[in-house]
Amino acid sequence: MSPREPRFGGVIPPVVTPLTQDGEVDAASLERLVDFLIDAGVSGLFALGSSGEAAFLTDARRDRALEVAVRTAAGRVPVIAGCIETTTGRVIERAEIAAKLGADAVVATAPFYARVHPVEIDRHFRVIRAAVDLPLLAYDVPVSVHSKLAPDLVLSLAADGVVDGLKDSSGDDAGFRQVLLGSSGLAGFSALTGHELVVDAMMLAGADGAVPGLGNVDPHGYVRLLRACAEQRWAEAKAEQDRLTRLFRIVEAASPATAGGSTRGVGAFKTALALRGVIAGAAVAAPMRELTPEETRTVAAHLEEAGLL
Amino acid sequence: MSPREPRFGGVIPPVVTPLTQDGEVDAASLERLVDFLIDAGVSGLFALGSSGEAAFLTDARRDRALEVAVRTAAGRVPVIAGCIETTTGRVIERAEIAAKLGADAVVATAPFYARVHPVEIDRHFRVIRAAVDLPLLAYDVPVSVHSKLAPDLVLSLAADGVVDGLKDSSGDDAGFRQVLLGSSGLAGFSALTGHELVVDAMMLAGADGAVPGLGNVDPHGYVRLLRACAEQRWAEAKAEQDRLTRLFRIVEAASPATAGGSTRGVGAFKTALALRGVIAGAAVAAPMRELTPEETRTVAAHLEEAGLL
Amino acid sequence: MSPREPRFGGVIPPVVTPLTQDGEVDAASLERLVDFLIDAGVSGLFALGSSGEAAFLTDARRDRALEVAVRTAAGRVPVIAGCIETTTGRVIERAEIAAKLGADAVVATAPFYARVHPVEIDRHFRVIRAAVDLPLLAYDVPVSVHSKLAPDLVLSLAADGVVDGLKDSSGDDAGFRQVLLGSSGLAGFSALTGHELVVDAMMLAGADGAVPGLGNVDPHGYVRLLRACAEQRWAEAKAEQDRLTRLFRIVEAASPATAGGSTRGVGAFKTALALRGVIAGAAVAAPMRELTPEETRTVAAHLEEAGLL
Amino acid sequence: MSPREPRFGGVIPPVVTPLTQDGEVDAASLERLVDFLIDAGVSGLFALGSSGEAAFLTDARRDRALEVAVRTAAGRVPVIAGCIETTTGRVIERAEIAAKLGADAVVATAPFYARVHPVEIDRHFRVIRAAVDLPLLAYDVPVSVHSKLAPDLVLSLAADGVVDGLKDSSGDDAGFRQVLLGSSGLAGFSALTGHELVVDAMMLAGADGAVPGLGNVDPHGYVRLLRACAEQRWAEAKAEQDRLTRLFRIVEAASPATAGGSTRGVGAFKTALALRGVIAGAAVAAPMRELTPEETRTVAAHLEEAGLL
Repeated sequence: MSPREPRFGGVIPPVVTPLTQDGEVDAASLERLVDFLIDAGVSGLFALGSSGEAAFLTDARRDRALEVAVRTAAGRVPVIAGCIETTTGRVIERAEIAAKLGADAVVATAPFYARVHPVEIDRHFRVIRAAVDLPLLAYDVPVSVHSKLAPDLVLSLAADGVVDGLKDSSGDDAGFRQVLLGSSGLAGFSALTGHELVVDAMMLAGADGAVPGLGNVDPHGYVRLLRACAEQRWAEAKAEQDRLTRLFRIVEAASPATAGGSTRGVGAFKTALALRGVIAGAAVAAPMRELTPEETRTVAAHLEEAGLL
Repeated sequence: MSPREPRFGGVIPPVVTPLTQDGEVDAASLERLVDFLIDAGVSGLFALGSSGEAAFLTDARRDRALEVAVRTAAGRVPVIAGCIETTTGRVIERAEIAAKLGADAVVATAPFYARVHPVEIDRHFRVIRAAVDLPLLAYDVPVSVHSKLAPDLVLSLAADGVVDGLKDSSGDDAGFRQVLLGSSGLAGFSALTGHELVVDAMMLAGADGAVPGLGNVDPHGYVRLLRACAEQRWAEAKAEQDRLTRLFRIVEAASPATAGGSTRGVGAFKTALALRGVIAGAAVAAPMRELTPEETRTVAAHLEEAGLL
Repeated sequence: MSPREPRFGGVIPPVVTPLTQDGEVDAASLERLVDFLIDAGVSGLFALGSSGEAAFLTDARRDRALEVAVRTAAGRVPVIAGCIETTTGRVIERAEIAAKLGADAVVATAPFYARVHPVEIDRHFRVIRAAVDLPLLAYDVPVSVHSKLAPDLVLSLAADGVVDGLKDSSGDDAGFRQVLLGSSGLAGFSALTGHELVVDAMMLAGADGAVPGLGNVDPHGYVRLLRACAEQRWAEAKAEQDRLTRLFRIVEAASPATAGGSTRGVGAFKTALALRGVIAGAAVAAPMRELTPEETRTVAAHLEEAGLL
Repeated sequence: MSPREPRFGGVIPPVVTPLTQDGEVDAASLERLVDFLIDAGVSGLFALGSSGEAAFLTDARRDRALEVAVRTAAGRVPVIAGCIETTTGRVIERAEIAAKLGADAVVATAPFYARVHPVEIDRHFRVIRAAVDLPLLAYDVPVSVHSKLAPDLVLSLAADGVVDGLKDSSGDDAGFRQVLLGSSGLAGFSALTGHELVVDAMMLAGADGAVPGLGNVDPHGYVRLLRACAEQRWAEAKAEQDRLTRLFRIVEAASPATAGGSTRGVGAFKTALALRGVIAGAAVAAPMRELTPEETRTVAAHLEEAGLL
């Protein structure tokens, strides 16, 4: 862990949202998943992120998923709530609900759909900060919002106490390193990588923790990985990361001829969790599709190779 | 107008949503704007589109804006309601509300934030179609959703009765022409261009109408333009379009050093409407900013040059 | 034609470069093609453009192709030579050779591979202008160079006498219209659209001519189209453009599962020319591939439908 | 070093090409630079890469730069020659010249300017391989060529003996890790990262070496860094990388309002080398510009902070 004593660190999986066949939150499965993750030793839960299908759930279903996660976590680990919305006012509305439902922190991206200038992205976070009474993490996810949070923007927001951390899913490790260097003196700031295949590397570079989608499927692996990093056993960390990188090929199970990135990722995570008996089924929200039996067999083969079945 | 007798045609401005300084819908201004547009001869109103700040308004404010527009239009022209949401289930929820509020049709984009395959975009529209009882228009707006609706996809959806029209804001006039050619035999299909600087050209190519953001500011100009096209007076149409193209430079008033595309567009349209006395003020939703006094003077100069002040 | 009396106008096809099976320029076929185009009534030839496989030919082959085109044109129409190179010094070197080989004008894009600022793009054209003694056209082709020439940049270069014209293959018709409006008083400036499916529309908007890749295959059609535009017979122009738009589907013959945009375009044009008996074969340069027999049959079917076989 | 015993490893800087004020290769400066780098302990030289301004130099200047580099290296370390050209035939022509000039290996990117399919990128490398008698490295640099070499494509080319290594400047560390994992059994394959701010991290992940542009400026730092990695002294490696990451801010010296990425990078590297007395001047090729005196002072301040002045 960094000298800045981050508020959040370790493994904080972006929890998938189990669904029933008719698209409702499968609360029993979500409860089992939350217990499964906490029992594995994760340090927190990130609910309603991209892997949580936040963009696919109606507000009522989002509320339900968050409510179940908070209730099940029951204070054992903090629950961070994604407030994935297009612009400032809508994010604030979601953050207020998250606060009411008991979230320990909220996460916001840059605006999307809207076409905004970096100056407006800066204002976005400042207005949210002024309106919301929980720790606020910036979520850098250009693959979804189509703009990148510049390191200097993040650092300026951090220095001014606007954001309390960063979840970096930009894939721009060089930029993330600039944030790590620039925030080293910021007490409490949490720098989390969502780049799940290079967690060892980013921990070496000074990250505080990871938010790996694959951590839903193999939380024990990521917990071991983070522990090895914390104890400077880098060769072991690397070996564990390599194993997880191989396992990550489950996201290639769904055919790229008929499935987009969301389906390939979330669909595979859910399929793996269903195969492992943690959740009841692998249903995903429209317009995604569930993996086919053949694709499911591919996921199963990867799980077996990884010793998880 | 095309031989297919489109359900919607002519000028259908994407109505801006006047706001008070504290971000609420300014109903009195919106009423005046709706009357102003209808008096100018527009054929319909597109509420809650990109120009209507749909992505910036909370659900309650969206509902309020649509309710005011429908009530004020009072059946004089149809009101088409944007249902700008990330994915299928959320669009359907908005569409159901739009139906209740009296909209005559709904508009949906491809999913955004989510990463989807064209097969999933196709499914998206089909699931919406099955759930919603109003005419459905596809809205092609890659600048906001970051994927393009392929002409063959639109034509296949049109042929199957899934979509009743297209609002094309892709800027891809060649692709739009493929849609125009391919839909020429589809009774009732409406092909509308949102490419406000080439409306004459797209009408020559066979479009049924236009959805020009600038039509908020100078609806009379667009009505004259569409009439000239309908009557094959192409030289006049071209001259009118050239005039409107010059007027469009109001979107360059806000400094690109501090304002994104949304601010530069919507902010300028609102500023022009305030200067023309149609709406009370030019407030925009966060994180956008209102135009400065100097920028406002630039807009005023363009309006004067165009004979609109 | 515009009041500015452009130096270049009408149909100026970007001439494909026929190749032998071992990749050499097939001079006899190129001679026949040049004659075919000039006999059809084109106003000029654009050699060594994207359709001419400039990016695929070694310098020696580029020289050979240009030499054959100039010799065969023999002053009947001007030959404009593409100088498609990454940066300033390399473009100048090519332009000097083009001058020696008898080209009547040269064409340059924005730098590519290099990562440059608009200020540097501006400098690029100014340095070329200072070094080269032929008319210079800017070629806006973001699909290949991955930056867009802003209308204001083009107009500033034009006003300063740096560029004598624009070949617009950006697909941004609204931007092109800004150039058309802004250059209306610039004597001699030539505004040419490469947007081959909306030539009627761009001529209505004030373009001086077109550089249509498909013009290799059906130059007679484009000549008729431009004549109808010049004589304000817009309904006829539209009908001709619609016919050509249908014909353009030959570029969809090559499977998108194994062929990129260059193969699909140039490969189809060459296949069509071979089918029409103008050139000896449809070979393309590596790493492109020739169309398969089945794909060739698809091209043939389109040609027949268009009355060209 | 990896168990695959890579042919190339360690620090292999992409050597900048010193220029005189009139754009010619400054041979004396290049000789000093080559000696400076070899004396610092680098393992090889990558001439005519992006940092070497390959895209900015005429063929004659490219030849001159390579000739000087090979002659000065004089077999002390291998010289790898970039063959940065748009397509297959042009790359082969450059590779034949590189072989004649004594290069030890050649480097090729995916085609650019051309619009190609992955199948065609695959064919590109295979045709080059068949024609060229030197080791061939693939150069993944989407920021310049605008397509990404997929890990599976690289691995397939590697398994078939088509490419002997990868220089990864894609910034996609997760993809690079897939290549590292997949190539672990390929004897002789060299996996080099060009991601100069995360070299420690990529060495931990299993890379064989680095090709850091900043290595021109501080080769001793990168040599120390690689040695620490090789000896598993990860905390030291991280500290060295952090220092280099701070130094890298020299690329922010040139104003983003007037300088593109190429100027900001290469211009800063040359300015630093001139300040350090290694090369005579910081001239860059058009349309880039040399850094201003004020920007040069910023670079100097960074060098001083890093203890390099």
